[in-house]
Amino acid sequence: MVLFNPDSTGPLRYVHNFSKSIAGAESNVAIALARLGHDVGWFSKLGNDEFGSYIKSIIRGEGVDVSRVVVDSENNTGLLFKERFAHVDPNVYYYRKNSAASNMTIEDLDLDYIRSAKILHVTGITLALSENTRQAVYKAVEFAKANNILVSFDPNIRLKLWSIDKARPTILDIIQMTDIVFPGKEEGKLLLGTDNPKQISEAFLNMGCKTVATKLGKEGCYITTKHQSEEVRGYTVEKPEDTVGAGDGFAAGFLSGILKGLSLRECGQLANAVGAMATLVRGDMEGFPTLDQVKKFMGIEEHIER
Amino acid sequence: MVLFNPDSTGPLRYVHNFSKSIAGAESNVAIALARLGHDVGWFSKLGNDEFGSYIKSIIRGEGVDVSRVVVDSENNTGLLFKERFAHVDPNVYYYRKNSAASNMTIEDLDLDYIRSAKILHVTGITLALSENTRQAVYKAVEFAKANNILVSFDPNIRLKLWSIDKARPTILDIIQMTDIVFPGKEEGKLLLGTDNPKQISEAFLNMGCKTVATKLGKEGCYITTKHQSEEVRGYTVEKPEDTVGAGDGFAAGFLSGILKGLSLRECGQLANAVGAMATLVRGDMEGFPTLDQVKKFMGIEEHIER
Amino acid sequence: MVLFNPDSTGPLRYVHNFSKSIAGAESNVAIALARLGHDVGWFSKLGNDEFGSYIKSIIRGEGVDVSRVVVDSENNTGLLFKERFAHVDPNVYYYRKNSAASNMTIEDLDLDYIRSAKILHVTGITLALSENTRQAVYKAVEFAKANNILVSFDPNIRLKLWSIDKARPTILDIIQMTDIVFPGKEEGKLLLGTDNPKQISEAFLNMGCKTVATKLGKEGCYITTKHQSEEVRGYTVEKPEDTVGAGDGFAAGFLSGILKGLSLRECGQLANAVGAMATLVRGDMEGFPTLDQVKKFMGIEEHIER
Amino acid sequence: MVLFNPDSTGPLRYVHNFSKSIAGAESNVAIALARLGHDVGWFSKLGNDEFGSYIKSIIRGEGVDVSRVVVDSENNTGLLFKERFAHVDPNVYYYRKNSAASNMTIEDLDLDYIRSAKILHVTGITLALSENTRQAVYKAVEFAKANNILVSFDPNIRLKLWSIDKARPTILDIIQMTDIVFPGKEEGKLLLGTDNPKQISEAFLNMGCKTVATKLGKEGCYITTKHQSEEVRGYTVEKPEDTVGAGDGFAAGFLSGILKGLSLRECGQLANAVGAMATLVRGDMEGFPTLDQVKKFMGIEEHIER
Amino acid sequence: MVLFNPDSTGPLRYVHNFSKSIAGAESNVAIALARLGHDVGWFSKLGNDEFGSYIKSIIRGEGVDVSRVVVDSENNTGLLFKERFAHVDPNVYYYRKNSAASNMTIEDLDLDYIRSAKILHVTGITLALSENTRQAVYKAVEFAKANNILVSFDPNIRLKLWSIDKARPTILDIIQMTDIVFPGKEEGKLLLGTDNPKQISEAFLNMGCKTVATKLGKEGCYITTKHQSEEVRGYTVEKPEDTVGAGDGFAAGFLSGILKGLSLRECGQLANAVGAMATLVRGDMEGFPTLDQVKKFMGIEEHIER
Amino acid sequence: MVLFNPDSTGPLRYVHNFSKSIAGAESNVAIALARLGHDVGWFSKLGNDEFGSYIKSIIRGEGVDVSRVVVDSENNTGLLFKERFAHVDPNVYYYRKNSAASNMTIEDLDLDYIRSAKILHVTGITLALSENTRQAVYKAVEFAKANNILVSFDPNIRLKLWSIDKARPTILDIIQMTDIVFPGKEEGKLLLGTDNPKQISEAFLNMGCKTVATKLGKEGCYITTKHQSEEVRGYTVEKPEDTVGAGDGFAAGFLSGILKGLSLRECGQLANAVGAMATLVRGDMEGFPTLDQVKKFMGIEEHIER
Repeated sequence: MVLFNPDSTGPLRYVHNFSKSIAGAESNVAIALARLGHDVGWFSKLGNDEFGSYIKSIIRGEGVDVSRVVVDSENNTGLLFKERFAHVDPNVYYYRKNSAASNMTIEDLDLDYIRSAKILHVTGITLALSENTRQAVYKAVEFAKANNILVSFDPNIRLKLWSIDKARPTILDIIQMTDIVFPGKEEGKLLLGTDNPKQISEAFLNMGCKTVATKLGKEGCYITTKHQSEEVRGYTVEKPEDTVGAGDGFAAGFLSGILKGLSLRECGQLANAVGAMATLVRGDMEGFPTLDQVKKFMGIEEHIER
Repeated sequence: MVLFNPDSTGPLRYVHNFSKSIAGAESNVAIALARLGHDVGWFSKLGNDEFGSYIKSIIRGEGVDVSRVVVDSENNTGLLFKERFAHVDPNVYYYRKNSAASNMTIEDLDLDYIRSAKILHVTGITLALSENTRQAVYKAVEFAKANNILVSFDPNIRLKLWSIDKARPTILDIIQMTDIVFPGKEEGKLLLGTDNPKQISEAFLNMGCKTVATKLGKEGCYITTKHQSEEVRGYTVEKPEDTVGAGDGFAAGFLSGILKGLSLRECGQLANAVGAMATLVRGDMEGFPTLDQVKKFMGIEEHIER
Repeated sequence: MVLFNPDSTGPLRYVHNFSKSIAGAESNVAIALARLGHDVGWFSKLGNDEFGSYIKSIIRGEGVDVSRVVVDSENNTGLLFKERFAHVDPNVYYYRKNSAASNMTIEDLDLDYIRSAKILHVTGITLALSENTRQAVYKAVEFAKANNILVSFDPNIRLKLWSIDKARPTILDIIQMTDIVFPGKEEGKLLLGTDNPKQISEAFLNMGCKTVATKLGKEGCYITTKHQSEEVRGYTVEKPEDTVGAGDGFAAGFLSGILKGLSLRECGQLANAVGAMATLVRGDMEGFPTLDQVKKFMGIEEHIER
Repeated sequence: MVLFNPDSTGPLRYVHNFSKSIAGAESNVAIALARLGHDVGWFSKLGNDEFGSYIKSIIRGEGVDVSRVVVDSENNTGLLFKERFAHVDPNVYYYRKNSAASNMTIEDLDLDYIRSAKILHVTGITLALSENTRQAVYKAVEFAKANNILVSFDPNIRLKLWSIDKARPTILDIIQMTDIVFPGKEEGKLLLGTDNPKQISEAFLNMGCKTVATKLGKEGCYITTKHQSEEVRGYTVEKPEDTVGAGDGFAAGFLSGILKGLSLRECGQLANAVGAMATLVRGDMEGFPTLDQVKKFMGIEEHIER
Repeated sequence: MVLFNPDSTGPLRYVHNFSKSIAGAESNVAIALARLGHDVGWFSKLGNDEFGSYIKSIIRGEGVDVSRVVVDSENNTGLLFKERFAHVDPNVYYYRKNSAASNMTIEDLDLDYIRSAKILHVTGITLALSENTRQAVYKAVEFAKANNILVSFDPNIRLKLWSIDKARPTILDIIQMTDIVFPGKEEGKLLLGTDNPKQISEAFLNMGCKTVATKLGKEGCYITTKHQSEEVRGYTVEKPEDTVGAGDGFAAGFLSGILKGLSLRECGQLANAVGAMATLVRGDMEGFPTLDQVKKFMGIEEHIER
Repeated sequence: MVLFNPDSTGPLRYVHNFSKSIAGAESNVAIALARLGHDVGWFSKLGNDEFGSYIKSIIRGEGVDVSRVVVDSENNTGLLFKERFAHVDPNVYYYRKNSAASNMTIEDLDLDYIRSAKILHVTGITLALSENTRQAVYKAVEFAKANNILVSFDPNIRLKLWSIDKARPTILDIIQMTDIVFPGKEEGKLLLGTDNPKQISEAFLNMGCKTVATKLGKEGCYITTKHQSEEVRGYTVEKPEDTVGAGDGFAAGFLSGILKGLSLRECGQLANAVGAMATLVRGDMEGFPTLDQVKKFMGIEEHIER
């Protein structure tokens, strides 16, 4: 989506000027992985309009392959307006009903492209957009599973897009097919009635998910497989600038660890670090680090003079 | 609709900053009439969101009664992005499919409110938005006609909203019921296959319309009834700043003349003047004059020093 | 007044860009009451210039009746520049000497309009502007009192407009005629030599004022009549964004309670809540809540996801 | 004065953002002369506020001596808002009634400083501001005349500051004492009832003025003394960006010629050139040239590549 | 280079705000070719800094391969400031002495990458930057020639970077090795002493260049080979917005024609069209068309409504 | 240098808009001293370009004599880009290699001008720029010493300009010739291997420096001569807005005390106060106080109403 940021805080009716950037959970993960040095592709459906071209060139500019993005000549590219307040998280207004992305169908998938990947990462947002997109996610996940491609899933529950009653069965169904899931505590409560990391892990593992990486915010994360569980302390960020994008950074850090063949604990550390660094910079994806930067952040950072 | 203006010219993908204002053919006419000193009401359906509140307060701030505006808690307020070029008219991108306005239904009309008016002004844009809004316009027009309220209609054909094949029969049907219609030459061609003002007039009068005020751009207008026809020369504007809103200003000037009981020729002169003044100022409605200003413009304007 | 906000902090000599909005204690109270659902009118004198038109349309846009605003063709509309610093309250520069508002006279009052009201709210600022405005306030207050209209008064002492020696006798004189007064602790000290809420209340009640609602900032308020006294705890706002407008919100909340027939304690709670909410948003009047919003704020606000 | 420029065209009520610069006929002439390489001093009265400090540092920054500027701790610095339209000259709104500058008195003059000058340049604007400033101008002019310092005068009639009936006798009275006067054709008409350059010259010479340099806009200027008259063709500027400041540039160019001992014709050519160059750049004083730049402009300017 | 555009016209000392974009003759040609649907690579040397990352992501975002861009950890990325005037072409200030790009050496070339191309396009700017870059251009051109890769060359003489006496021998030397050269008339005069297209063509053909495509601005172009010469009329653009980038668009259009196997005349028409379209939009590269857009521009463009 | 400030936080590649101001350790000290009421001159070498003119007019506008500034027609004026983050100090990018200032040579010094001063203040930045500037600093310092002019020195170590191994011997060498040195604790560590104020002082005194004023940040300062040592507590600033410029303010305050003949302790207090006030305002030099302002800050500041 194209994201319009208000130039001042307060109710949008009093805001005169907006600046344009991009937003999107999947594109965030893709960009974060590209910055960490991986080959990544992102696919979605964009309107045949200036906003679609903008999204495509920004994501491509970050080094992500966009060759499988489909252009929809009927529907326009989705939008998102932020409303910022000093004291609470930003409010959002979506214009994505009937957007190009919400009209993505199974036909828009390039299964050969998916087959060529090591990991397929999907989120609950695409499940929520429409019946079409739900079907497309199912198709992609099932295809990946059948072809021994790792399926990674971030529930990313957005109650503005669907009710929890509609979200729950679909998300739980998908989780059964996933290799890695990234729930938050709040999402544990919404889906399972518990925000206890151990209970969340157990429930998802019992459903068939192979790895559960529960995000604990500042506290770090709790990672479990059938055979192992790791509690990984988070990095301290004194004054986080913007927490949006932290979850996506976490997922990217974790998947990067998987791709590098790191241990579960190391994956969690890298995930924590990328997630923490995302909060240091305003903007969803502007703060994702390169491999050098995250190594420096995780080690001992020295700088006498800036 | 909320209108987002790019801060720079060129393709929107390269524009970083946008500023917010409002747009809408009917609200333009309402504001122009209010500024000329008439009591005006505007009704539509707005989203229960910041953008809806914004539109309502701007229109109310201009002195238009908005007490019959309906708030839609399901759909959001429509948007419009302009793309400006130095050499051609601006391009527009609509986000109004499924907007609150396009969900206005017959139930949202306050017929008693319409009954209290002298003139009901509607445009082809509302006809184009959806089946609901088409029905609502029909209901309002039929009700007005049945209650001897003057029906005024601006075709305002927007091919981005409907094809000419869908637009033609509906618009021609409505014109049969109208007392005053404001076609442009281009619209004559699209609807009737001719851009000849006399032929346009004749055709619409034959359909049952009482008064046809055909807009001829810089040349002025051609006004006809069954008994009379007037060719009224336009005002010269050397460097028009922005022609958007000129047609709405023309309609408002003409209706103002009707309300004041002016002669047909005088109505045309006032319409030409308000339309011309609208082009002197960037923005859709910012250039509409007060009665004093338009009188001065029509007479001899002297100013030694600014 | 038109308010010019600097786009950056620091001494104004180094600020290049300013953005325009409106300011004014009485118009703030009027807007806050309108947003809470009451019928409100605001009257003042504005210049016959663009800034006067701007103020009128903004206030009218918020749903306040401005039909009694007088236009002064001789003097221009008053201005106010803010100078913002990170560490202290903003500094202000007034351009209101000889402004239209400071030339308001008794002749500009529409006594029939005042007679139609339930409450007349005036502030010490209008008393301070000029001898004319002082007389107009006296006339309005005396007329209201004679016609059994509640008189509400906020001292709003601005030492940039008059010295405390000039302010004290006039303010104390007016307080004798008021039904409700909204002093702050600092104002108690300036007027009476004490910032003790009980002593302030007693002093004003003894002068003849019926209700004293002393604002205690974060601590809330202390409300007294001859027969009753209530200490009402304030709402906690962790990071107030902008305290300007809080006092006006407090007054509006209290008067809303009076108009609704609430108990003294409930009036104080509503006043505290509206005042607190005003601090959550930058800008004088942008943060005033609707009735729904303030109820939610006063109750248990739950939101899982924004 | 501090000048606030709107960031967009159209009525100020719809303009949200303004940027700050300085304006003033006398300071323009002083800056233009400094840029041409002369030692110049400018004196006026400024408020003891940020806007006064701003004006002082900008003028000082341009190399003009501001050591005789008086600071007024009672009144604030005058302001000026521009309203820009695409099709006509900008409109202005003054906030200078009771400003510090309009409170300058004879006591604020440093006569020794004036004695040390070669030329004293004053304008009709200072005559118009108030009775005080009128007296101060008279005193300065009489003192200069008595001390054989050249008196230069630009009528600069601003009908927003005084009526022509008030302006005429004062201006004509001052002209009797001046050595050089810079009327425009429009001013000839207002003061003398003729815009014929020869008649204007004759009239002023007959009153006792030594040199009359009548500005003819694009056509150039017409310069006369008792013994000589020169018609000097102007420089062609195809697309003038902003004509404000052209008259001040003209005066500065002419005075520079006098100081350099150039012939009357050469003075006129330099005046025409500086005036023309002022129109090439938006802003009052931003376009004044250095000596090198004006020489290049007057000669053959070659540039193959920028 | 990173390009800083002033937000207002006039001397840069008075400009407060700048916005960032990119500039560069070679990258313009690369982007224009990519937009026309070709596979393009661009190589240069960028600083190991934010500005280098910015340039890389913008060019990559436009679909150009940047895999051979070299990062220089010693020198920073070059900058360019524009100074805009209403009446003349913009002035530029370079910060590219010792920039990363000017430190590109033969070692930074990937000859295998060049070998894989159909055309190598270089410009006189890179020749001018430094001795290193001159050598690198020579090496690349000689290598391309030796490997039967078409060499395309745009003289792009910038007298701010080198004097004509230094430029002439080098440029003429390179032209001997090129297959296609794109001189302008002004450049003909500087290099050969004639701005006559026929004489320019003859001279360059005699030196050994295979094809000469002389740009004639609005008039179009004159194209010659040993066996053929074509005068191709240009497209009329009534109000060109910004002529910067037109020459680069011309070159890209011509090279696109070559790659498509078009006739010489068709190559010239496509070149004229892409060059003309580049002037319709402010910005160096923002106006380059897609193949569809340029076809529409060259044919009969119809649009009833925008 | 001209300083470009990003309008938003985060990596510069994502920042679109920048605003221009000036930066420079020596000019900061000069401006701070001028604002405290002293006669100050600043000399350097600036490019013959708009940015050079800008710097000159800003510094002159602050009341600093710039008559000895040399203009370099070969090299351009140095630049500095800030990159701001919420959580750490800003990052800087220099464009000053080969700048005009780095080409200042001994020939550019006006020794008579130095002879007329009471204090010569130099910094380690000028030592670092180039071999030329190093020689010029040496020459100026030696000349001042030989003429009994106080030499004041701020090490201002910038590791982006030179390595500590190159900086150390030069700085220690200069310190031997200085009367007053202003080290920070960090600089003590870099130069001497200790951040203990007493050890720093002792070391520098032993080298021949007369007075050592070690800056301790919020804690204040530690001042020593051969005969005396003073520990002076700093002023508490709860929320410093911008610490850049604090060291320069400290130096200016101290030198102002010396010029006024204050005691060592009083010099330290004034230095602490000016340094603390510099942190209250964003920008390097915007926060430097006048004498009145700093007195009020050091005493009991009372303000009832802003």
